[in-house]
Amino acid sequence: MSQTRAYAAFAEDKPLAPFSFERRQPRPDDVSIEILYCGVCHSDLHFAYNDWGMTRYPIVPGHEIVGRVTAVGDAVSHFKEGDLVGVGCMVDSCRDCQPCREGVEQYCENGFTMTYGSDDRQDGSLTQGGYSDRIVVSEHFVLRMPEGIDLPSAAPILCAGITTYSPLKHYGVKAGHKVGVIGMGGLGHMGVKLAKALGAEVTVFTRSEAKVEEAKRHGADHVVVSSDEAQMAAVAETFDFMLDTVPVQHDLNPYLATLRYDGTHILVGLMDPIEPPVAGFNLIFKRRVLAGSLIGGIPETQELLDLCAEQGITCDVEMINIDEINTAFTRMQKGDVRYRFVIDMQSLKRGDAA
Amino acid sequence: MSQTRAYAAFAEDKPLAPFSFERRQPRPDDVSIEILYCGVCHSDLHFAYNDWGMTRYPIVPGHEIVGRVTAVGDAVSHFKEGDLVGVGCMVDSCRDCQPCREGVEQYCENGFTMTYGSDDRQDGSLTQGGYSDRIVVSEHFVLRMPEGIDLPSAAPILCAGITTYSPLKHYGVKAGHKVGVIGMGGLGHMGVKLAKALGAEVTVFTRSEAKVEEAKRHGADHVVVSSDEAQMAAVAETFDFMLDTVPVQHDLNPYLATLRYDGTHILVGLMDPIEPPVAGFNLIFKRRVLAGSLIGGIPETQELLDLCAEQGITCDVEMINIDEINTAFTRMQKGDVRYRFVIDMQSLKRGDAA
Repeated sequence: MSQTRAYAAFAEDKPLAPFSFERRQPRPDDVSIEILYCGVCHSDLHFAYNDWGMTRYPIVPGHEIVGRVTAVGDAVSHFKEGDLVGVGCMVDSCRDCQPCREGVEQYCENGFTMTYGSDDRQDGSLTQGGYSDRIVVSEHFVLRMPEGIDLPSAAPILCAGITTYSPLKHYGVKAGHKVGVIGMGGLGHMGVKLAKALGAEVTVFTRSEAKVEEAKRHGADHVVVSSDEAQMAAVAETFDFMLDTVPVQHDLNPYLATLRYDGTHILVGLMDPIEPPVAGFNLIFKRRVLAGSLIGGIPETQELLDLCAEQGITCDVEMINIDEINTAFTRMQKGDVRYRFVIDMQSLKRGDAA
Repeated sequence: MSQTRAYAAFAEDKPLAPFSFERRQPRPDDVSIEILYCGVCHSDLHFAYNDWGMTRYPIVPGHEIVGRVTAVGDAVSHFKEGDLVGVGCMVDSCRDCQPCREGVEQYCENGFTMTYGSDDRQDGSLTQGGYSDRIVVSEHFVLRMPEGIDLPSAAPILCAGITTYSPLKHYGVKAGHKVGVIGMGGLGHMGVKLAKALGAEVTVFTRSEAKVEEAKRHGADHVVVSSDEAQMAAVAETFDFMLDTVPVQHDLNPYLATLRYDGTHILVGLMDPIEPPVAGFNLIFKRRVLAGSLIGGIPETQELLDLCAEQGITCDVEMINIDEINTAFTRMQKGDVRYRFVIDMQSLKRGDAA
């Protein structure tokens, strides 16, 4: 077993702190990875603070992992030592149910194994994430970093990127479609770039006038200030898709009204009860659809990485050292990040950690 | 103009009573129809009582109309005197927008003309429905009654039938799919028959043990008593589609939990705000879809009538005379109808009306 240096949350009311633990002995299909960068997702914060009531401590967050292969098991066929690779939100699934066979392991009927906070399917140990210097993952859940991709900014593609890309692909977004993106944080700014990459005409909905120029810089064709009723009325019944990245409760009805008949409102952030409630007639009268979508499968994540490398699509990131993680969490809670913190994991080796 | 005998609502707190008015002079594309039967839809009651705040009195309800052609305009090419025909919820639309061109006139971007309670697109007069002895309708919105169809029980196909058929067809329900039907009233019992006709395995969800045998009589393969948590848990994540015909607020979350990944919950009855609220995670974690659907287009209504004639599918009806309409409304409010009242319009001629 290999000793791993990390930062972990030890209790819901305590800051993250250095932690040392042992990764499992690599299995024949395992890839051993030295972690170079790890993105900081809002879920990390929710897990660390036990906002979802399911955290077992100590927990090492992090599921936007980029690293280099240090060793492979005998049964590994797709990776070799030295390869640049990524690991996203999943490290295993049943691999046998229909969703798994279809390559959408996130919908595994037996529940996928989360990169951190799950029980390993074989030995039952608690999985630990990417705020650490190494990780051991079955090759099926390892992504290849394509030639020429910028590594730090590729990390968030593994969660923020795929979460927006997967539904856009699933619903067949393409040239000729009008897509609205609600919210412009880590997910939203990637949604804009990816909907543009797929050929759609993209409008960002934001409450803040201040974000108009920024949205256009990410490639948005139009910006609607959602608090301006006249602007909202002007786009009534015009959109094919609405990609809703807002993770907190908000009124969907004004956005539903901007969808044309057969339009689809896709939730990727809102886990809570939908309040204020959606009016049934807003769905019925125009055959509109309210849908949810969760991260993305392994094959489509690889497809996305390749697309990003090919088209030079990157996530806007702010690099931090591991000992800045608690400050980063605090700043994220205030919305003060453009658009994703990424931890330079070399900082663990510089003696900041245990 | 032709004098028309009818029953109308005159105020929200008064019973329906005899009424006489003039139908428009037939236009070149118009079909003049002697009404034989008219189904009684819950919308009729809502309109008569002004539950939706949009009623202009006096109003003649009725949009499940079966009759015989008495005359046709010079430009009418598909109907002739003596033909048996039907008229459903729509009598006109813009005929030019994309939904109209696609044959889903119910989603007309300029608003379809309701059979009653709308402004006629040409002369601005208030449209009046089928609780009357005749109607004049453009041939585009007239349906052909196929050979051999039972006329009284065909009337509700024009609303209750098509409202359930349209989404089943739109979402491609076929053999191999598991379909749940929630609620077993006018719409629900047709939903069971039509989902069966399309080849699906059908489960009725009912709160009442008493309806189990009845559901099976309509062809349901299984019945789940929705108030029984054990029965609900036993069908978790198993359905492809849920056809929700319940028109009053109810908790969708337990039903969403019975949908497998990519499953679709279709609302056809619930116009009100969806309370208790749907939990976002119930959509996101399994990529589930919550959709609405409104009646159906003219081409698919014809398709449905033909299917019903071919397969002998009928709506279960209870015949009434027009002077029993107020009692029928009262019984409907108590849920005391199996499953649709249909007015024998001959009763208007027997001196019951003005």
